[in-house]
Amino acid sequence: MKDRIQLIKQIRKKKSFLCIGLDTDIKKIPSFLLDFEDPVFEFNKRIIDATHKLCVAYKPNIAFYESLGPKGWESLKKTVDYIPKDIFTIADAKRGDIGNTSDMYAEAFFNTYNFDSITLSPYMGEDSIKPFLKFKNKWSIILALTSNKGAFDFQKLKSNDNKFYYEKIINKVSSWGDINNTMFVVGATKANDLKNIRKIIPNHFLLVPGVGAQGGDLNEVIKHGMNEDIGLIINSSRGIIYAGSDNNFDEKAKNAAKEVQQKMAKFLKN
Amino acid sequence: MKDRIQLIKQIRKKKSFLCIGLDTDIKKIPSFLLDFEDPVFEFNKRIIDATHKLCVAYKPNIAFYESLGPKGWESLKKTVDYIPKDIFTIADAKRGDIGNTSDMYAEAFFNTYNFDSITLSPYMGEDSIKPFLKFKNKWSIILALTSNKGAFDFQKLKSNDNKFYYEKIINKVSSWGDINNTMFVVGATKANDLKNIRKIIPNHFLLVPGVGAQGGDLNEVIKHGMNEDIGLIINSSRGIIYAGSDNNFDEKAKNAAKEVQQKMAKFLKN
Repeated sequence: MKDRIQLIKQIRKKKSFLCIGLDTDIKKIPSFLLDFEDPVFEFNKRIIDATHKLCVAYKPNIAFYESLGPKGWESLKKTVDYIPKDIFTIADAKRGDIGNTSDMYAEAFFNTYNFDSITLSPYMGEDSIKPFLKFKNKWSIILALTSNKGAFDFQKLKSNDNKFYYEKIINKVSSWGDINNTMFVVGATKANDLKNIRKIIPNHFLLVPGVGAQGGDLNEVIKHGMNEDIGLIINSSRGIIYAGSDNNFDEKAKNAAKEVQQKMAKFLKN
Repeated sequence: MKDRIQLIKQIRKKKSFLCIGLDTDIKKIPSFLLDFEDPVFEFNKRIIDATHKLCVAYKPNIAFYESLGPKGWESLKKTVDYIPKDIFTIADAKRGDIGNTSDMYAEAFFNTYNFDSITLSPYMGEDSIKPFLKFKNKWSIILALTSNKGAFDFQKLKSNDNKFYYEKIINKVSSWGDINNTMFVVGATKANDLKNIRKIIPNHFLLVPGVGAQGGDLNEVIKHGMNEDIGLIINSSRGIIYAGSDNNFDEKAKNAAKEVQQKMAKFLKN
């Protein structure tokens, strides 16, 4: 339940627009955690304890929980409940289906799991997105130009009016909601496109994954993507949560988060 | 674990290429089922008992289970386990994410829940699809031209070489896999486009939703979409599972399924 003003306030207060991706892989967490009843939650809890003053958002990637069967969803629920209430939560789910089904997904993530926002795939068009926009103080974060190599396959095809496909999507989707309930995903590895994107949507918040393990450059993203209200939530997952692999993994994660946060703080001074 | 040959054999044996969508909504099932420990599974079990001789596939839409929290996934698991082993199972999940995340989704649906196939959104390109194609005897079913109104927003935009965007997707995705591990979703409400699609992929199986509640025409779909190996799996969800709303809902569902199957049988004679 965070509106735009609250989000901007949090960013200025913490001098951070960092989102930490909780892509918690049971095969990658320190082995001593496997003795706990719920190792995934235990890992997340310690990461949250160590990093919550340095970030403004947490983004569990739902695939990692889904792959564990029903108990993975228990770990997810406990994780969302554990996140301090002033921190923005993002269900990185990339859902999207016909209207009556999108209603169900919105119910799942906004009510059952009480996320503030969800990532959505735009491919199925208006009736796949609108059910999410009906929820007050909840956010839809639409895939525009993603951080992966496959983004070139379809997102950067040119349309018959010489626009990139992702531009057509941003144009249209931004007319369905507004800057108070819609954000877009733009990969940090596509920083050059940010100039272009800011011409279409100068005021929307962008969720930017791909800094860290995927190789995106933080300075470039800020240079081309930041607006007067900051307008950026920059995500790092593996670079932070797997910074260490030992008993002190949480301390290592904290240091990795702090390093990013301090870079961000410099840009927020200006 | 059904290959193409087995699927075609089942279709010829049952004289049916019907898929029944298990979009089981706890608010819509007959109220007497709410007294059971797991009403959603109980509903599905009775639908499966009543209809399994008339269809070759079941397609649970994952949103309906996800919206119920962890216990919804228990109902889903029990449902998949209950489906007779010779019937093709489709996780209608419309997933798609960067490579390491798609690995997790593939693990979830192909191993944890043991589905034969999953529906996928193509927007994120090659590395979002390929992890699913690595699994032997498992199928990826890619959204091409969907049944909903929103399909016109982006799927039917024209590219700079005057192709529909969905054609570009079918062209490229069909080169990543082959007719033994890839199908495409084409909505029954878009039957006129089927001629066009069959020029690009004459031999692939198509999953066709939108007959029934969404208004697609079975005859038109068969006329434009059927090939020598049938090449069609036609889905009906609400039109069958909610044909009745009383104690005899399973009998009503059976009759509704039979009606569709008998129409299909006529085309399989020729």
